[in-house]
Amino acid sequence: MPETASPAACATLSEVTRGGVVESRHLGAVAVVDRHGRVLHAAGDPYTLTFTRSALKPLQALPFVAGGGIERFGYSPAQTALMCASHSGEPRHVEAVAAMLSAAGCTPADLQCGTHAPGFYDARGEVPPPPPYSPLAHNCSGKHAGMLAWCVQHGAATADYLAFDHPLQQAIRRAVATFTGVAEERLVAGIDGCSAPNYAVPLASLAAAFARLASAEVDAEYGVAPRALANAMTAHPEMVSGEHRSDLALMQAGRGDWVTKIGAEGVQAIGIRNAGLGIAVKVADGQKRGLYPALVAVLGQLGLLDGAARTVLAGWATRTIRNYRGIETGVVRPAVVLAPWQAPGVPLASA
Amino acid sequence: MPETASPAACATLSEVTRGGVVESRHLGAVAVVDRHGRVLHAAGDPYTLTFTRSALKPLQALPFVAGGGIERFGYSPAQTALMCASHSGEPRHVEAVAAMLSAAGCTPADLQCGTHAPGFYDARGEVPPPPPYSPLAHNCSGKHAGMLAWCVQHGAATADYLAFDHPLQQAIRRAVATFTGVAEERLVAGIDGCSAPNYAVPLASLAAAFARLASAEVDAEYGVAPRALANAMTAHPEMVSGEHRSDLALMQAGRGDWVTKIGAEGVQAIGIRNAGLGIAVKVADGQKRGLYPALVAVLGQLGLLDGAARTVLAGWATRTIRNYRGIETGVVRPAVVLAPWQAPGVPLASA
Repeated sequence: MPETASPAACATLSEVTRGGVVESRHLGAVAVVDRHGRVLHAAGDPYTLTFTRSALKPLQALPFVAGGGIERFGYSPAQTALMCASHSGEPRHVEAVAAMLSAAGCTPADLQCGTHAPGFYDARGEVPPPPPYSPLAHNCSGKHAGMLAWCVQHGAATADYLAFDHPLQQAIRRAVATFTGVAEERLVAGIDGCSAPNYAVPLASLAAAFARLASAEVDAEYGVAPRALANAMTAHPEMVSGEHRSDLALMQAGRGDWVTKIGAEGVQAIGIRNAGLGIAVKVADGQKRGLYPALVAVLGQLGLLDGAARTVLAGWATRTIRNYRGIETGVVRPAVVLAPWQAPGVPLASA
Repeated sequence: MPETASPAACATLSEVTRGGVVESRHLGAVAVVDRHGRVLHAAGDPYTLTFTRSALKPLQALPFVAGGGIERFGYSPAQTALMCASHSGEPRHVEAVAAMLSAAGCTPADLQCGTHAPGFYDARGEVPPPPPYSPLAHNCSGKHAGMLAWCVQHGAATADYLAFDHPLQQAIRRAVATFTGVAEERLVAGIDGCSAPNYAVPLASLAAAFARLASAEVDAEYGVAPRALANAMTAHPEMVSGEHRSDLALMQAGRGDWVTKIGAEGVQAIGIRNAGLGIAVKVADGQKRGLYPALVAVLGQLGLLDGAARTVLAGWATRTIRNYRGIETGVVRPAVVLAPWQAPGVPLASA
C-alpha cells in the first residue's frame, strides 16, 4: 500500500491565484468506484492510504442501527443523522444530542469527545466566546451519543467506550472491514481528534464503502441499516453538517441522491445512489480550501451536476479571495482532471 | 518560469502522522544560494515562481531607510524593525507604531492596511475579543507607517500610497528588482493581504535578496540601508514577530547571524550573515504547519545549528499533535532532503 499522498501519487486538485498566477496549489488524489468497488476514474493514486477521519461516521453508526438501536431508544431520523455528523454545535444540534443521551440514561458528562468552540461561529465568520465549551457542542457529540447508547443497549461498560478492545469498537472495526473490503487485521489504526479509534484504508476502499452505503439494496450483512443511515443523512443534511457548510450544500444539491461526509485533513466521501458510484477525495496537505473546488469539479466531470445543483454549489466551486479591506486578490479554483483508470500494468480493454 | 510549485517542482518538505503512518504531507521547494545568488542546494525546483508576501517587507523598507527616513523621523532600531514586521499586535507593537505615525504627522486613520484581530491571541492559543480592531494592531501596520513616513518626507500624497503608480511603490519596485535580480518589467505583481503591491519572483531570487540583505558590505546601490535593516531585525526580533512565534525563535537561535522573515502562504526567507547564504522556502499548499519543521531541517542540513540553536528551535523542529482531550495522535515532522544543485542540462563540475 503506498504511503498517504506521496508526491508521485499526487495530482493537482485545486489552485490559489494572486495577480493572475498560481500562488499556491493543493495536491492529492481522487478515486471513483462502481458499486462493486472497481475503480472507474481517478486523479493521482486512487489507492493512496487515507485516514478516513469523520468520513467514517456512518460506518461507526452501523452496529448501533443494525442492532435495533434506533427503535430501542426512539431516535428520530434527525437524531440518526446526528450520529453521522460533524455538526456545528447549533442549538438544534446540541438539543438533539442532549435528548439522545437522556433517552439512553446518559449525561453530557459521559461524552469523551472533549470540547471545542461550537463550529457555527467559524461557519458564520464570527469570533466564538472564550471557553469553556460544552461537549454537547463538539462536532462529534452525536456520534459519541450513539456509541454510549450502543453500550447501554448491549450492557457494555460506558466508562471505556473508546478503548480499541471495547466490544463496541470491535463491532465498529468489523463494520469498517466489511464496508471497505479491507481485512480487519490490515486496517491501519489511529486515534481521532475526538479520541475514538479511527482507520486508514486505500482511498478507493473509502469510496467503495460509500457506494455500498448508498445502495438501494438490502445489505447482505447489515440489512436495512445502511439505507436507514443514508436516508437519515439525505433527509437531514442540516443535522449532518450546519448552516453555511459544504456537506449541507452538497446534500441539498444532491436532493436525496448523494450521501456524503467530510473528514478532517481534507477527506471527503460521497455515495451516488442512482448511479451506484462511490467517490473519495484526499487533499494531501489536509486543507479544506483545496477540497471544495475539487469536489464540485469531480461531480461535474462525472456528469452529475444539473443547473440546480450548480447553483447550490456555486460558492464552493470557485471562491474569490478578498483581503482585509475587501479587495479581490485572487481566486481558489479547481484544477483536477479525472481520467479513466486502468490498473498499473493492465492494458486497457481493446479500444 | 515554472508555475508556482507545480507538482513536478515539488519535494516533500514535512509530514503529518497518525497511528504511525503519514496522514498528510506538505510539498514545496527550497533554494539555498550564495552571496552572488548562485543556487548551491535545493529541494524541488529552486526557480519556482513564488509570491514573496511579507518576506518582501525589508525590501519595501529600503527606499525609506536609504533616503534618510530613520534620521529624519528619529525612528529607533525597534521601530525600524517594525517596518519589516508581521507583528502580533502586542501593546509594545501598537504603541511603537502609533509613535511612528505621530512622528510623521500621521494618524491611525491614514493606515490602509485594514484590520484583523491582534495576532497575539492566536499565538497564545486564546480566543480574541470580537471586532472592531484597530489598524495599529494589523500585523503590517509598521510597514504601512514607514510607507506613510516616506510620503511625508518626499512630499508625496498619502491618500493613494498603495497605488502601483505611486512614487513610493515605484521606488519599492526598483528596490525589489535590484535585490532579487529580476528586471522590473518581469516582476509578477499582485495585491497583498494588507492591500500593498506585492511581487512574485523565482524562489532562488528571493533567497538571493536575503543573502544581499544580510551582507556585511556597504551595498553598491543602497549603501548602509540593508545593514541598518538587518541589524534592526536581528537586534529586535520581538518587534519583527511576537511572543511564541517562529521568526522570534529563529532570530533568537541565530543570535545576530540570521536575518529572516516569514510570509503568508508558506513562504520564508533567511539571510545567513557570516556564511553569506540566502535561503528561501515555499510550501506549495501555503500552510505554516508544513513550513516550520522544514526550516529547521534545512538549517540543520546546512550545518548551521549548534546545540544552543537546536534547543531554541526544538518546538518548531517537530511538533506533537494532541487531540481535544490532550491525547497524542501523531507528529508533524520534517521530510525535506537538500541536494546539491546543478542547473538542468549542465554537468556537475568534474568530480
